[in-house]
Amino acid sequence: MKEKLTIVKVGGAVVEDEAQLSQLLKDFSAIEGNKVLIHGGGRRATQVAASLGIESKMVGGRRITDADMLSVVTMVYGGLVNKNLVARLQANGVNALGLTGADMDVIRSHKRPIKDGVDFGFVGDVDRADGEMLSRLIKAGITPVMAPLTHDGQGHILNTNADTIASETAKALAPYYDVTLIYSFEKKGVLRNPDDDDSVIPTITRADFKQYKADGTISGGMLPKIENALSAIDAGVSRVIITLATAIDGESGTKIF
Amino acid sequence: MKEKLTIVKVGGAVVEDEAQLSQLLKDFSAIEGNKVLIHGGGRRATQVAASLGIESKMVGGRRITDADMLSVVTMVYGGLVNKNLVARLQANGVNALGLTGADMDVIRSHKRPIKDGVDFGFVGDVDRADGEMLSRLIKAGITPVMAPLTHDGQGHILNTNADTIASETAKALAPYYDVTLIYSFEKKGVLRNPDDDDSVIPTITRADFKQYKADGTISGGMLPKIENALSAIDAGVSRVIITLATAIDGESGTKIF
Repeated sequence: MKEKLTIVKVGGAVVEDEAQLSQLLKDFSAIEGNKVLIHGGGRRATQVAASLGIESKMVGGRRITDADMLSVVTMVYGGLVNKNLVARLQANGVNALGLTGADMDVIRSHKRPIKDGVDFGFVGDVDRADGEMLSRLIKAGITPVMAPLTHDGQGHILNTNADTIASETAKALAPYYDVTLIYSFEKKGVLRNPDDDDSVIPTITRADFKQYKADGTISGGMLPKIENALSAIDAGVSRVIITLATAIDGESGTKIF
Repeated sequence: MKEKLTIVKVGGAVVEDEAQLSQLLKDFSAIEGNKVLIHGGGRRATQVAASLGIESKMVGGRRITDADMLSVVTMVYGGLVNKNLVARLQANGVNALGLTGADMDVIRSHKRPIKDGVDFGFVGDVDRADGEMLSRLIKAGITPVMAPLTHDGQGHILNTNADTIASETAKALAPYYDVTLIYSFEKKGVLRNPDDDDSVIPTITRADFKQYKADGTISGGMLPKIENALSAIDAGVSRVIITLATAIDGESGTKIF
């Protein structure tokens, strides 16, 4: 039987709020056994860019990572956010190791091709995560803390969505561990009624999802999230949980399997 | 017999000059066997701080690391400089892993105490480097790339001199490897005549150093550098080389043993 591994993805908003961050680090440190933390870091990068006089360029609501913005996200995600998380986890007794995809070549990507005339710039679409290398670290008692940055193998860092880092890491580790992937966000879970924060749907299977999609219970931005979760399940991840950042106990939220 | 390990320390000025950096990465990648890279990153931090409207405070010619400056060095040293070096080494076939002292708790320090009324701020004096953990990485084929940042074990990153990171790392690895520590800088080595760039002293032992110090051949800022080198030798490092950043072949420069 495979050992358990818990992978927690936390967004940039939580990392930037001291009260929430402090709770999250306490809860994450309390998770027994093998674990991995994956963080975003969106808003601080925008603030630092603005302070440096670098404009955040958007096309169709999505950020463009030009050369200057790549420097900023490399500094903020790979340095400021990642290293402070690592230092604070160490203070909590967690033997954390900060990683980008370039470190030990753990996540390789390629620059997203120009599509419909839109060039997202230095954004990486993941080719592969090295589950074998990550599992060796984890077996040695290390807790990887992964920034949303990858590399192309040609010497370039690329900006990569943290949700993608989380799902690719979970899939790559599924052959080695019984993986629970927890996506934390600002709601208690997937809601039956978006106006009622307590209307959390406790479990969703692929069959349930088809039904909820057909009858309109689940719609909008939640659709791709659950599709990603189901694709992780198909790739061997045992369960995906969507929950509040302050409720990463593995019990709260919506469980997808 | 212990395996050979080469530790190269490169200053911020080289890292910021594309021609020199490119040569250094090529030369470093060509070093056979076990190796570690340690980098500074001074001027870019000052530039980023200035762009962010953060004043670089100096007392007696030495930089004070206040909270804002600590954020800047964490971004620049731990993120921008470190991760770009890692990505470029990966492109050269070197399986690099970027580390601060907080990562896997490899270098623990304490905040430098206030002395003679001067508070250097968030500057760390090293307590210990974990040679056992670093040697496990190196044995696994990993090349550590170390930023001049440590942590206090209480959740705080501290700014730490890159020369000190280099000597402490070399000392900590001496029980496991036959260590050559190379300090690269802007001269060809320790010069007999400061006005003649080719007057490199090829070897210096402790006896030679006493003599050169007494007769004034070596003076000023070179004295503490060589004292540090000799203390590394006393702690088991096999040899220390002071050389040009573009001549890290282990033969050029001044060899101290």
